[in-house]
Amino acid sequence: MLSSLQRQILGAINSAAGLSRTELAQVCGMSKAAIGGVVREMIDAGYLHESETVNGPGQGRPSVRLMLRPEGAYFIGVSLLQTPAQMALINLQGEIIARAGFTLSREPEALAQNIAHALPDLLEGHTDAAARLIGMGVTLSGFIDENQSTCVQSALLGWRDVPLASLVAAATGLEVFIENDAKALAVSEKRFGQARDLDTFTLVSHGAGIGSAHFIAGRLHRGLHGGAGEIAHCTLELNGTPCRCGKRGCLDTIASLNAIMEMAREENLGLSSLAELEQLASGGSAAAIRILHRAGTALGLAIAQLIQILDPSLILIAHQAGAFGGLLGTVVQQSIETNVLPGFAGLTPVRTFPIDEDTWVRAAASIAAHRFLDGPDNP
Amino acid sequence: MLSSLQRQILGAINSAAGLSRTELAQVCGMSKAAIGGVVREMIDAGYLHESETVNGPGQGRPSVRLMLRPEGAYFIGVSLLQTPAQMALINLQGEIIARAGFTLSREPEALAQNIAHALPDLLEGHTDAAARLIGMGVTLSGFIDENQSTCVQSALLGWRDVPLASLVAAATGLEVFIENDAKALAVSEKRFGQARDLDTFTLVSHGAGIGSAHFIAGRLHRGLHGGAGEIAHCTLELNGTPCRCGKRGCLDTIASLNAIMEMAREENLGLSSLAELEQLASGGSAAAIRILHRAGTALGLAIAQLIQILDPSLILIAHQAGAFGGLLGTVVQQSIETNVLPGFAGLTPVRTFPIDEDTWVRAAASIAAHRFLDGPDNP
Repeated sequence: MLSSLQRQILGAINSAAGLSRTELAQVCGMSKAAIGGVVREMIDAGYLHESETVNGPGQGRPSVRLMLRPEGAYFIGVSLLQTPAQMALINLQGEIIARAGFTLSREPEALAQNIAHALPDLLEGHTDAAARLIGMGVTLSGFIDENQSTCVQSALLGWRDVPLASLVAAATGLEVFIENDAKALAVSEKRFGQARDLDTFTLVSHGAGIGSAHFIAGRLHRGLHGGAGEIAHCTLELNGTPCRCGKRGCLDTIASLNAIMEMAREENLGLSSLAELEQLASGGSAAAIRILHRAGTALGLAIAQLIQILDPSLILIAHQAGAFGGLLGTVVQQSIETNVLPGFAGLTPVRTFPIDEDTWVRAAASIAAHRFLDGPDNP
Repeated sequence: MLSSLQRQILGAINSAAGLSRTELAQVCGMSKAAIGGVVREMIDAGYLHESETVNGPGQGRPSVRLMLRPEGAYFIGVSLLQTPAQMALINLQGEIIARAGFTLSREPEALAQNIAHALPDLLEGHTDAAARLIGMGVTLSGFIDENQSTCVQSALLGWRDVPLASLVAAATGLEVFIENDAKALAVSEKRFGQARDLDTFTLVSHGAGIGSAHFIAGRLHRGLHGGAGEIAHCTLELNGTPCRCGKRGCLDTIASLNAIMEMAREENLGLSSLAELEQLASGGSAAAIRILHRAGTALGLAIAQLIQILDPSLILIAHQAGAFGGLLGTVVQQSIETNVLPGFAGLTPVRTFPIDEDTWVRAAASIAAHRFLDGPDNP
């Protein structure tokens, strides 16, 4: 366990991608002498190293930049979002060192055993990493409790109140935290990605389902029941399409990839991918255009409501490779601008990026890294 | 100016409605001896006083409870929401000590002069309060910048980029902060009202217009452009009624009191208050029922989306006296429950309370009190 000062130091250096001792002393409100001692301990413990010498602004003497030592700590990420399920080992910089797959079981005990059995494979040949392994993060689609230990509900896995973290901890001997997929990805972007220097942003993940998560004032906002960001079940069409949640007209029934492909089936378009639907649309198919417009309008409207309600510094949209390069992406952008208060439209940066095969395991591992570096989000 | 430790002490005592020195030492992570010295200074400075002696749990010796001294500090609140505009003097407990009215001018310089001219009236006979006066808060309908000094935009006042805080400060010689009405009311409920012990809640204000504001992890969340909580311009009906903002189907065009009365005029119902509309509805008027259903459904849907997006610990709805006692209130409640993810519906407490003539001036003054006690929300 790090002390809160050590955490603050690692967090500040991570956000700024390197700091001098003088800068660090300012950030922490300590004297340079006092910070020097703590920094020395953290270098000796292998968490920090001194990087290139830089010239500070208007300062005669060059100063040494402190960086996180990538080999200072390791974390394991487990994604239950694919079949087979994925596992990866990452370092303190979020780089993936090793990967392994294992059988996804919906039976929690069996799943914990499968994870434990895949561990030696993952760690083979990484003795140094195993020696500095901090813990494991597991990500899945569903609601997670505020302690990041129990899956309150997961439609995809058919779970209710499954104490997954303790089951996996018992099977592996590791400290384990679990997290909802969109929240894990937001943590990953904050810790290792595009939102590193932002305190307040919202991530939206678009795929088979839809999720979102918010960082506010530097902390992941989980909400009273861990339900913050559940935009998939915002009602977008009153009296709309029945949703598996029991309501009607949820965003999920209109704009998720599953919903889009279901609408294409109902129109008998005879295709098996979004790319084919986009191709039909660009060829002029009224049905394909209609489906993509309906989905994009609804997703854009939901994002506009996020902007009206939270006014975040950035909206990051994570999507399947290629999914936002055609009409769908254009309509989403158009719908956001149309539904945000005029005068404020266009002021909120919206950035899209594709999910790749490493995204979810890195996101899962980042949960363990985030707990290590920042402590619990609701201390 | 208080030190950050003094602020922490006043904040903790305020939230808990009184603390012993032992409890306070725990909250601040200090020794009882160290806290004792600071507390002594703050008693001498008149911010704290010792209240009744209480028996701690399982503790032999009774301990003295520290309370805020109501007369320790005073604040002035100015509300530009009514005509004539209102002004009040409050103490450290949020109690109103004196009131004054003045002419609301839309010309900023003239307004600042009007405020300055009304001050002596307000302070007459309150020499002690004048001697311990900390500052002034001004509340209005509009967007306020992150420094709480400039009104970026106010449709009601016809303003754009008006540096109101500095104009009023120059005219009065006081430290002045300005704030959007819903945000000011949220601060007032956090500081003096029903949300005193909550770190995360959302306030919705329903009146001629509609607003909302969020406390998240103990801080007011203002958003990148001060626009967080602008639910009035969430699109609720695609291709709906044209809104004065330039969009269509904004919540404001369906559910504000102005919109409700406008719909009643369009239906030629010949009435002049919501109470009369409610009476028509309870007498069976299809048009009255339709209007109240449409308004209540939209407001409930917007609140359900707040819940889906933020999962707050409490939704506080501030409304005009009597406005939520009939069909409108019932439909709002019904619409919230219908549009929140089943299984989570009903888990978020929703509390309504009526606005009275003191609500907005107290809210305005609470902005100055909050800055004094908590410092800036975005330090």
